[in-house]
Parts: sequence; structure tokens; C-alpha cells
Amino acid sequence: MTDRTRTGAPVPSTDPRTGAVRAHPAREAGPADVDRAVTAAARTLDALADRPRRAALLHAAADALDAARPEILATADAETALGEARLTGELARTTHQLRSFARTVADGGYLEVRIDRADPATGRPDLRRTKTPLGVAAVFAAGNFPLAFSVPGGDTASALAAGCPVVVKAHPGHPETGELCARLLRGAAERVGLPADVLGTVHGFAAGTHLVQHPLTAAVGFTGSLRGGRALHDLAAARPRPIPFHGELGSLNPVVVTERAAATRAAEIGTGLAASYTLGQGQYCTKPGLVLVPAARPALDALERAATTAAAQAPAAPLLDPRIRENYLAGAAHRAALPGVEVLLAPGPAPTADAPLAVRPGLLAVAAEDLHDDLLDECFGPLTVLVRYHDDTDLPAVLARLPGTLTAARHHAPDEPPARTLPLLARLAPLAGRLVLNAWPTATAVTPAMQHGGPYPAATTPTTSVGTSAIHRWLRPVTYQDAPPDLLPAELRD
Amino acid sequence: MTDRTRTGAPVPSTDPRTGAVRAHPAREAGPADVDRAVTAAARTLDALADRPRRAALLHAAADALDAARPEILATADAETALGEARLTGELARTTHQLRSFARTVADGGYLEVRIDRADPATGRPDLRRTKTPLGVAAVFAAGNFPLAFSVPGGDTASALAAGCPVVVKAHPGHPETGELCARLLRGAAERVGLPADVLGTVHGFAAGTHLVQHPLTAAVGFTGSLRGGRALHDLAAARPRPIPFHGELGSLNPVVVTERAAATRAAEIGTGLAASYTLGQGQYCTKPGLVLVPAARPALDALERAATTAAAQAPAAPLLDPRIRENYLAGAAHRAALPGVEVLLAPGPAPTADAPLAVRPGLLAVAAEDLHDDLLDECFGPLTVLVRYHDDTDLPAVLARLPGTLTAARHHAPDEPPARTLPLLARLAPLAGRLVLNAWPTATAVTPAMQHGGPYPAATTPTTSVGTSAIHRWLRPVTYQDAPPDLLPAELRD
Repeated sequence: MTDRTRTGAPVPSTDPRTGAVRAHPAREAGPADVDRAVTAAARTLDALADRPRRAALLHAAADALDAARPEILATADAETALGEARLTGELARTTHQLRSFARTVADGGYLEVRIDRADPATGRPDLRRTKTPLGVAAVFAAGNFPLAFSVPGGDTASALAAGCPVVVKAHPGHPETGELCARLLRGAAERVGLPADVLGTVHGFAAGTHLVQHPLTAAVGFTGSLRGGRALHDLAAARPRPIPFHGELGSLNPVVVTERAAATRAAEIGTGLAASYTLGQGQYCTKPGLVLVPAARPALDALERAATTAAAQAPAAPLLDPRIRENYLAGAAHRAALPGVEVLLAPGPAPTADAPLAVRPGLLAVAAEDLHDDLLDECFGPLTVLVRYHDDTDLPAVLARLPGTLTAARHHAPDEPPARTLPLLARLAPLAGRLVLNAWPTATAVTPAMQHGGPYPAATTPTTSVGTSAIHRWLRPVTYQDAPPDLLPAELRD
Repeated sequence: MTDRTRTGAPVPSTDPRTGAVRAHPAREAGPADVDRAVTAAARTLDALADRPRRAALLHAAADALDAARPEILATADAETALGEARLTGELARTTHQLRSFARTVADGGYLEVRIDRADPATGRPDLRRTKTPLGVAAVFAAGNFPLAFSVPGGDTASALAAGCPVVVKAHPGHPETGELCARLLRGAAERVGLPADVLGTVHGFAAGTHLVQHPLTAAVGFTGSLRGGRALHDLAAARPRPIPFHGELGSLNPVVVTERAAATRAAEIGTGLAASYTLGQGQYCTKPGLVLVPAARPALDALERAATTAAAQAPAAPLLDPRIRENYLAGAAHRAALPGVEVLLAPGPAPTADAPLAVRPGLLAVAAEDLHDDLLDECFGPLTVLVRYHDDTDLPAVLARLPGTLTAARHHAPDEPPARTLPLLARLAPLAGRLVLNAWPTATAVTPAMQHGGPYPAATTPTTSVGTSAIHRWLRPVTYQDAPPDLLPAELRD
């Protein structure tokens, strides 16, 4: 295994369809193992300073992942049950990200070079600014994206692109996929003449805390739960030398359906919602988790009927791992039992022949005045909550209670009067990193204009984890004053 | 007074030349006062969304400061003893900053707009990204720049430019200057049709902690001491909703003199060093506080003699306030008494007729092998430490012990062999935000290529507090997906 840990407890790889342990592809890393991984990574900083070689690394990594596609898909599916179609798409996104960052590095525009030449008249010195890597990046793999947000994912790609070596805390939900990808990336590094240690992995809960606290760790990228992420955020801030903690800690992704929208296309909205919140078994960061619908009948009945019918037809399927399944079932049951909550579709276990651990989606509804605080916490998995609002005073009252979120969406009618529209949008805008109009937040694209990150807890820094702008998470500006050309980085020479 | 606090203890304005209390221009703010100030500021967010009006505000603020120049200079000098020449320059820099940010706002390039149009072929949605203000900015005025880093300074200018209302925690060293400038800025706001509360002030130590903890405070800018800054940093990170803390907490600004440089121009370097570290009585963030000089004689003698002679001729002058004076005298005496330290010029009180509290600079020297940890802490005021190094192993050993710093400088000879030069620069680069070659760090310029901020503790985030890039401290990206033109911010329309 690439993590080279020899003494810790074996890390199991579990089949989420059955709960059976498949293998033990790694060992948990103790403090000495973490130290070895971070120190080895730090030693590669100088080698990574070679910009063309970094671009070559990212291309070689993408090629290596493509070449191993069958093995990657089989391993990832065995560990996550996400299925071949979804994982094929995710692998394509992952290699696309790596190649995008390769072009970003080669282009050099991300360095935001500024050159202010000396002005002998005013005595102004020669000043030239570029950007320099922060140091070793600690990356926490996400459970729900075993490729695109894990070992070979966006945080790793953007950090390597910036010139930062990476140590990944692998995710316990897909340790074998993590090790497989790490081997491929380390091999790609060696093939382009870089040390394999530009990327390392560690496994185990305690390894994550040691990684954040290691003196040579210079920044952290995290995608995961509010509780775990907040604890690591606090550790990063409490270090003798605090470091940036770029965390995505959960998102409710509220949706507002206007009265006119419901009146004109209730069934379409209900069906669209069901498709969105059950996509990938509701295991997307952008799953719509709270949907404000107008209480006026008969539109409400039509919308709820369409959503319930469509969600009930979604095939039962396992969740990412048995722990997430337990949390989903317990969390959904707790919410369903809150006062005032109406269960439109009961969440629960739904064993199938090949997946005894499969579950079915749930759909809850509640009046705005009965909205319990616990319904404002994200419930990971195929569950959403319809909040029935009665009038224009309900809406702002509910929106004022919402935490920061990755996305906020609104479904409206073409003839919606701007006098009603703009105030609502003004209330949604401060909540979210992406405002979605007449579409569902899970329908998205990885393009330069994409913003993935919103006010806390959706993100802990005002940055994006998706798209090439993510490279700025791992850089700091540095200015050279009056430096002779042979002492300047290449991009700062005339 | 503009802070409208009615009940707290009166805040004294003290004459740093004599220690006499001049006036009580404000009162300390309690929690309710801070709440009132932040809430009033937050109510101006919508008004500040008007970009042309923000540009007008920044121009009007600069004009108002210019028009009140005599009163500002007299008040600031009475409170800081910085003198008319220095304060005239600082006021010019302050109004220049305000006008630069006015142009930045009007130009709009800082919004980094990206538009990716819909692609019906792939189903890609229309995505348009801009930047949006974080909310109320808390700005901590700096003791050593009563204008350029205080109420009307760079943090305030960049935050207002970004569209963030500002509440300034005024500095106890110049409360009257702070209130005067606040009145001028609030008047400027009203003249351009904005609420005066786009800028407020609070006074008192406790007010600072309440300000950082207020739920509506969205980001903090701080320039000051390591101890105070770290405490506020920790409060910002520990909030239920953590917020960015952009702090500048001190800087040692190491300088390395190569053997060849000392051999060829020892006297010039010694004289230049004295001018740099005594400039403004050593009260610059960029004061060279640790100077590595080759121990080889006779060059060392010539360099030290020149530095001592020049520093001894610097006129005795008061420091910014009596507390800073006490800290300087105690800190300098402590360092002078450390084992192995040689006192080349004894720091101490040097009363003059018009300034009984004046002090004179100090100059210390120590062998690299005797370098005590306490000499690696910044001593605010006109003191620097020469560290005599013997060979190529001393240098990296000392540099490895240095904390992050705003600047790192090297004095070298024109014929320095690159084989010796590049490894040294490679060791300096990770320490600093600005690398200075054959010049002193206090000689600088406010231009787009300037970087003011370095690794912790020189800065707590990888950003700059000087130059128009500082606007990014107060913004977060936001993307509009499939929004009709009438719902888009102006800059995102076709």
C-alpha cells in the first residue's frame, strides 16, 4: 500500500450493499506515520516548483486514471454502490479537472503577475508580484465523491497545480479506491520525473487530527460533516501557527416555489423536485433539503402528489456506507416524528436481492409555523422537507432562520412581477454561493463561472472548491523588490 | 462625538511628548453600544450596494480629509508626536488610497466577472459569477498609522469599496484623530446620499472583543500586536459562525548582509541600516529588527561603527504613546541584558525641552551561536539586533528559527556568484511576503504590485492589507444560474 503504514489497526473496506467486509487495503496511521508522510511530502516542494513539470504531472495523472478505468470503477462501485454510470461520469469529471488544472498551470495567468517598474523620478523601487505555494496541503477525502472530491479530486488537483505537495486523509468509506488512485498518481509523478511523495495518504480518524496539527501542514481542504469539519477547523485555528482551513461542512440548499409557479406548473415542479433530491440517493452536497411551497390548494395538492408519486418510484438502493445508512434512517425517523410533520412518503429500509441494506426515500411536509429547528439541519440521504407557507410574512421569517448554504433556488412564473421577485431574491442572495432560477441545484456544470462554496457552514472561507479558481486556496502573494533578473522567478522577468 | 456612546468611561487623549491628558474625546463602548453601532452599520448594506455611489463616497471622503488637513495634522501630531512632515505624507497616502479604491469600484474589474452562457447541446446552464460583500467589517485602528491604517485607512477604504459598512475600533493612542476622521467620513457619506452609518466607531478594549463576536460582524481587519491580535483571531475562529480575520500581528523583517557586500560597502550598509531602523522612531511594521552580518573583520567593525555613529546622531524623540514607550524601554533593556549581547548603543530615555518622554535608539549585537529566542520577538521602537554569523552553516540555522515576516532583505555585491545567492534566497522566500534586494524594507511604495502581508504572524490570511488587491478581503464569490436579465446584478447582464 502507498501509505506505508506498518503498525496501525487494519482499515476495512466494506460492501455497502451487504455490510460485509471486503478487504483491509490499508492501516491506520499513528502520529509517527503522519509525520513521515508530511515530512516526505514537504521534501518535494522544491521539485514541484518546476511549473511545466507540474502540468505534465496533472496530465499524466489523468492519463493514468483513464488507463485504469475498469479497475477504478469496479473498486469504487464495490465500496460505494454508486453504480457504473455515475462513477463513469465522476471519473470523467475527475480527469477533466486534472487536465483543466494542467492548462491553468501552463498558462500561468493564475499567478496574477503585476510588474511596477522603478521610477527614478519619484524614487519608486522596482516591484514585481507573483504567487507562491503555501506548503504541504492536507486534503480530506469526501465520502460521497470517491474520485472527484477524494484522493485524485479537486482539492488534490488544485493544490498540486499550485505547487503544494498533498497528503490525503483517505475516507473510510472507500479506502481501497483511495489507495488505488494514490498508487496511480504516485506512479504518474515518477513517470514525469517528480518524486512519488508529491502525494501521500493516511488513514484513520486520529490521523486526520495529527495531519491538521503537523507543523509542516500549511493549509487544509475538507469536504464532510459539520461536526467533524468544525472540530478540524478549530484545531487549524488553534495551532501555534494557524493555517487556512477550506471546509465544506454541509448545505441545506433551500428552494422557494412562488405561488404563481405552483399555480401554473405544480406537477412539473413536484416531479422535478423528486428527481433532484433522490439523485444519487440524495448524497449530493447540493441536494434540495428544504422546499418552501405555497400552502394554497389545489396547487399544493398537485405538487405534493406529483413529488410523492415520483419519489415513490425511485428504485430502492444502498447508501454510501452502513454508518451513513444508520444516520439517514435515524435522522429521517426523528424528523418524521417531530410535532406537526406530515409524512408524505415514509423513509425506511427497503432490502433488495442484491442489496439487503438498500433504503427508500422519504418526503415530509410541515406548516411554516411548525418548522422545528431540527428540520434546518441537513439530513444526508434521500429525504427532503416541504415547508408550506401561507403568505408573504411566512417566507422572510423562514429564510431568516436558515444557515449559509451552497445554493438557494427559486421557481417562479414567467410573468412574476419584479416588485415581488426582487425582495425575495435579496433575501436569498446573502445565504448562498449560487442562486438558481427555475432549475434544481443538483443540475450544474464545472465551468469557470461556477461557485461551489457559500456562507458558513456551506464553506469556512470565501473561496470555491470547484473550478480552476480553487487554485487560489493554496497560494500566497509574494513581491520581489529591486531583484536582479537572475534572482527572479521566470514569470517575473521582463 | 460620532460614536454616540453616552455611558462608558471617558477615553483620554494623551500627549506622548509629556504624558499629559489633553482631552476626553470619546467614551468607552459597552456591549449595547457595540450592538447599536454594528446594527446601524448593517442597515446601510443595501444603500452601499450602489456601486457608483460608493465610488462617490470614497472621492468625497478623500476631499473632506484634504479640506480638513490643518486640523487633522494638528490633532494627529498632538496625539502621536509623529510630526508634520510624516503626517502630511501619511494623509496624502490616505487620500490616495481612498481615490484608488474609488477608481477600483468604478472600474469593476475587481468583481472578476465570469459569464459561461448556456449550451443547449450539453444541457449546460447559464452561469454568471460576480462578487458580493461579506457584510459589516470590523476594523481595528493601528497605533502607528493614525490615518493610513486607522479610521480612514486602507482597511476602511477597501471594505467600503467592496460594499461593506465599517465599524472601527478606534485606537487609544489617537482617539481624537479617530473621531475627527469619522465625522468627516460620515459627513462625506451624507453628502453623496448615503447614510452616515456606513461608518461608525467604538472605543475601549472590551468593545473590540464585543465587535469581533457580534453576530452581524462578517469580517475583521486588524493591525497591531501579536498578543492582542492572536486573542481576537481566536475569538473570530471560535464564533458560532466563524469569520475571516485579516490580521497583521508583527514582523521581524530580517536582513542578510553577504560577506562580499560587507567587504565592499560596510559603511554604506551601516549608515543605511541606521536610517532605516530609526525612521519614525522605529515604529514601522517594516523596521529591520534582525540583521545578519558577517563576523569577518575589519568589515564587521566598519559596518558596526557606521551604524552606531549614524544611529547615535538620530534625534531623540517621543514614541507614539507612554505605554509603547514603557514597552520599548523595558523590552530593549531586557534584550540588552541577555547573555552574549553586546550593547553598541544604549537605548534609554533622552528627555528634551519639548518632549520629556523622548527616547534614543539602541543597537545590540550578538554572535549567531548566542542568539536568544527573545531576540526573535519584535521590539517595537528604535532598536535592532546585529547577529554576527561566521560561516555558511550559521546562516541557515538562524533563518530556520525565524517566524513569518512581512519582508526579508538581502544586501549583496554585484558580482555575487549565483551558486551562493540562490540557496540563500530560497531560504528567505518562504519566510516573507516581500523580498528586498540591496535596499531597506522601510523604503517602499503603494503600487499594484506591492504585497503587505506574509506568513504568520506577519499576517493571519494570505492576503495584502496595502494596495487595491485588499478589496478581496471583504468579498465572496456568488454565481447566478439561469437568471433572467432583470434579476441579474448590472455587471452580469449581457
